[in-house]
Amino acid sequence: MTKFKGIAASDGIAIASAFRLTEPDLSFNKKTITNTDAEIERLRHSIDVSKQELRVIQQRTFKDLGRHEAEVFRAHIAILSDPELLKRIETMIKTQHVNAEYALKAVSDGYIQIFNSMTDNDYLKQRSTDIKDVTKRVLSHLLGVTLTDPALIDHQVIVIAHDLTPSDTAQFVPNFVKGIVSDMGGRTSHSAIMSRTMEIPAVVGFQGSLSEIKDGDEVIVDGLTGNVIVNPTADERNVYLRKLHDYQQQNAHLTSLKNVATASSDGKHPILAANIGTLADLQAAVDNGAEGIGLFRTEFIYMDAQQLPSEQAQFNIYKTVVKKMGSKPVIFRTADIGGDKELPYLHTPHEANPFLGYRAIRMSLDQPGIFRTQLRAMIRASAYGNLSIMFPMIATITEFEHAKQIYEDERAKLIAAGVSVGRIRLGIMVEVPAAALLADQFVNVVDFMSIGTNDLIQYVMAADRGNRRISYLYQPYNPSVLRLIKSVIDACHSSGKPAYMCGEMAGDQRAIPILVGMGLDEFSMSATSILKSRALIKQLDSRKMVTLANKTVSLASTSNQVLKYVHQALAEP
Amino acid sequence: MTKFKGIAASDGIAIASAFRLTEPDLSFNKKTITNTDAEIERLRHSIDVSKQELRVIQQRTFKDLGRHEAEVFRAHIAILSDPELLKRIETMIKTQHVNAEYALKAVSDGYIQIFNSMTDNDYLKQRSTDIKDVTKRVLSHLLGVTLTDPALIDHQVIVIAHDLTPSDTAQFVPNFVKGIVSDMGGRTSHSAIMSRTMEIPAVVGFQGSLSEIKDGDEVIVDGLTGNVIVNPTADERNVYLRKLHDYQQQNAHLTSLKNVATASSDGKHPILAANIGTLADLQAAVDNGAEGIGLFRTEFIYMDAQQLPSEQAQFNIYKTVVKKMGSKPVIFRTADIGGDKELPYLHTPHEANPFLGYRAIRMSLDQPGIFRTQLRAMIRASAYGNLSIMFPMIATITEFEHAKQIYEDERAKLIAAGVSVGRIRLGIMVEVPAAALLADQFVNVVDFMSIGTNDLIQYVMAADRGNRRISYLYQPYNPSVLRLIKSVIDACHSSGKPAYMCGEMAGDQRAIPILVGMGLDEFSMSATSILKSRALIKQLDSRKMVTLANKTVSLASTSNQVLKYVHQALAEP
Repeated sequence: MTKFKGIAASDGIAIASAFRLTEPDLSFNKKTITNTDAEIERLRHSIDVSKQELRVIQQRTFKDLGRHEAEVFRAHIAILSDPELLKRIETMIKTQHVNAEYALKAVSDGYIQIFNSMTDNDYLKQRSTDIKDVTKRVLSHLLGVTLTDPALIDHQVIVIAHDLTPSDTAQFVPNFVKGIVSDMGGRTSHSAIMSRTMEIPAVVGFQGSLSEIKDGDEVIVDGLTGNVIVNPTADERNVYLRKLHDYQQQNAHLTSLKNVATASSDGKHPILAANIGTLADLQAAVDNGAEGIGLFRTEFIYMDAQQLPSEQAQFNIYKTVVKKMGSKPVIFRTADIGGDKELPYLHTPHEANPFLGYRAIRMSLDQPGIFRTQLRAMIRASAYGNLSIMFPMIATITEFEHAKQIYEDERAKLIAAGVSVGRIRLGIMVEVPAAALLADQFVNVVDFMSIGTNDLIQYVMAADRGNRRISYLYQPYNPSVLRLIKSVIDACHSSGKPAYMCGEMAGDQRAIPILVGMGLDEFSMSATSILKSRALIKQLDSRKMVTLANKTVSLASTSNQVLKYVHQALAEP
Repeated sequence: MTKFKGIAASDGIAIASAFRLTEPDLSFNKKTITNTDAEIERLRHSIDVSKQELRVIQQRTFKDLGRHEAEVFRAHIAILSDPELLKRIETMIKTQHVNAEYALKAVSDGYIQIFNSMTDNDYLKQRSTDIKDVTKRVLSHLLGVTLTDPALIDHQVIVIAHDLTPSDTAQFVPNFVKGIVSDMGGRTSHSAIMSRTMEIPAVVGFQGSLSEIKDGDEVIVDGLTGNVIVNPTADERNVYLRKLHDYQQQNAHLTSLKNVATASSDGKHPILAANIGTLADLQAAVDNGAEGIGLFRTEFIYMDAQQLPSEQAQFNIYKTVVKKMGSKPVIFRTADIGGDKELPYLHTPHEANPFLGYRAIRMSLDQPGIFRTQLRAMIRASAYGNLSIMFPMIATITEFEHAKQIYEDERAKLIAAGVSVGRIRLGIMVEVPAAALLADQFVNVVDFMSIGTNDLIQYVMAADRGNRRISYLYQPYNPSVLRLIKSVIDACHSSGKPAYMCGEMAGDQRAIPILVGMGLDEFSMSATSILKSRALIKQLDSRKMVTLANKTVSLASTSNQVLKYVHQALAEP
């Protein structure tokens, strides 16, 4: 028996035999080419075939796993459609008379080097992984080598791989791939995120040599702790069989909560809603017992398209969502474009600090044509369910009033044209500190507020949460953040309006006790966190949580102190 | 008589005859070069001569106008030392066999085009102007054309120019150049900033054709309103002579306040201090009657150097500053490097959002060697005057305690080594919203707080103030900002600690009444704003301003409403 450690990347426990996903041999020699036109033709053909393959994988992933997981393949196709990249490879073939394999590798290595040199930036690091993955694919076609096809695995295994590409992961059949162990990647790599969605236990960043695991070895993957055990003793296997049993029990308990209303031990009923971006996410929300949709990120409709989506196309999607949720509330956020979500077809100029830039409602008010189209589609969909609209990145009351005016214009026009329109509530995302600080003024003009903690924390702490060098400053439990959140909730309640939250914090098991204490009315989170949160809230006495919440904002001076208070409150009988 | 409008860029009124600063003829033909090595040699020589000239201008500007104004020439020299740029020009000469003039122009035009395409970014726009300016200089040497030398103007004139380069402006003799009119540039262009420092009235962005102004025409420049009058009637001239007289009277009144303690009409005594970056700024602070230095931006010492400045070099500067100010308080801010202030020799990686990134105290705590050296220099200087230290970008109490620990380590070591050390107060810049929100906790550990409004506003509004597309969101008078400022001042006072401000807002004539009402203890601003502010405060009754301040934070919901309250309060008898 040998024990190894790694990073726990996807919950769960699995026991099965090892299947080593070996790297194909993609080696080649540098050659001198006389007929460069034919060589360029060969390159283009391989790229076309690769793109075709990627489209198939993209569609299957979209169908099986959802939009977010399919996104990476859209990025791959985009890389292979980048005229700048292709031009560089072709120019190299033409001027240096080298073979396509060599030119492709040289150019893509150059890109990877540049991206990797920007060490602080997760986004660019991911782009470098993407380029590696597509280069491998094109190279395989140039060389006539068949890539290992993980879709062909037909018995229960633990996949052992050096560097799992998203293409590999997407092709796993969950019934056969019971667990994953890989050398590379962190918790936030695409492969790790996919394995969580597919609910395959995974350990990444393996601390040991993968060569010590042979094909057919019995392997235990503990995705909860990051433990990997090779050829366990009978005792060890029994320990893990028990753990697996407990884990399955716990899962069964959670599943039993699916159709139960959320309630604290003393009978308070906050709503547990889901954040969604696509229709696939919508299904997951329903499957996990969401009591509403607290955030529909409509910008994904724009990001999935090659041009601005039409009013009718948007209407069809919006109608489907509200109809599916029936009487349950659905909050649509108008497009939050800009920041790290650029639309290539809008050609917005580069910004020095995109997170502090031209994005979301700022863009909507500046380009009201796009905004009006979206609002019309939403207003039309309101006839089919329980629909609310909120505006992202509102900083001033003037902005809200401006946006509301445009909304009312479009609503009046639709009514005048005889379109049937439902009751719509109008709110704002509270993610700019200015809006949070002025919550008592905003409550006079909005129907509800939804606190977007991801951005709010980033601005309150003045720290880009994608920047690794200062990641210690992304502090959801910092008392300053909690004070701001409490002041927003209090302002809402003092004028009888509801307060919601739709940032990651809403599904955070350590933050929920505090937020219950503050009286938050709706927690909107990723679908997979709902049942866990419902189980937690069931155990909480909201009156004790009020005491906890008050302590965190009045006594605590640091994040650590807050966590200590939470720990104490949960430990009390 | 003809009247024109433009942008008022530098206060004051001037009447004199026009001097047209004509553009030199820098036209050339494209030529085929056979001896490319000789051509590259000719290019290198012209670049060397240009760099030599720029060094002379840089030193003279530094001496006459100060560090900030000389900065642009450092940038120019840096451009001419950029190996990438030179390589591109030389490669073009070598591979395309073109003359140096052609290659220089082609490459620099390429850069300018790229920079200009990034329309939101003032910094890059400025780089494009810089490249234009240096290209002109190198081109003049390649062509053997003498650039017009503004230093040769020897009688009183109004300079009329299409596009005034910083090199031109820096060479003006203020006694002869009485006013400036130019087509290009905005209030924040380098030339406009320089003309303000040189106190030459200027109108930029001239709305009319400069060709209508002939050499020798009598011209009136009104830098207060942006009016330009050519060949005025006798009546009009008299009107402006009166205005000029009033302006000079007003100036005389301000000068009379130089050695008077700041006081409100009811006898409150806030301190008016200066923000400085260099020893040249220090002289301006003294000349304008500063009652202290509220912010010494020590990072400029690092930015002016080619490598990390030594402890001794820093000590010499710090000692000079505190000695010059005598018993008056001087607050040193430890280096605020990063963000938009990069040090080329530190090789920090590119960041997606530098304003939310690795900067200031974050870098100091991460690279404590640099920090310790600076602290030692400051602690040693404390023996020579009234010295305080503050840390920039503090977000959490843990960061402050960490910084303080390092400071105390170094202080103890120096004392143990027998170095004489003065009393030092330790404070923080309040510019991260988290610190402002937790001010009542911070007061337990700091000696004072200084509100840095430039960054604080940027984070509260989530808007990069350098980004033109969202410049409407940089709102110093937004009630959310004012609430945060008031809460910091209140927290300080409730535990007997003083509250300072060192952002641009401290010298803003519309913000000062509110800040007096909030009881701010020290206003630190650019030296040129001190006398104006002292005159304003003299007219304010602090008790009425308390009412104003309370109205802005409790009743106002927008920036405009705040400004209305300020207007009303100042209009009351």
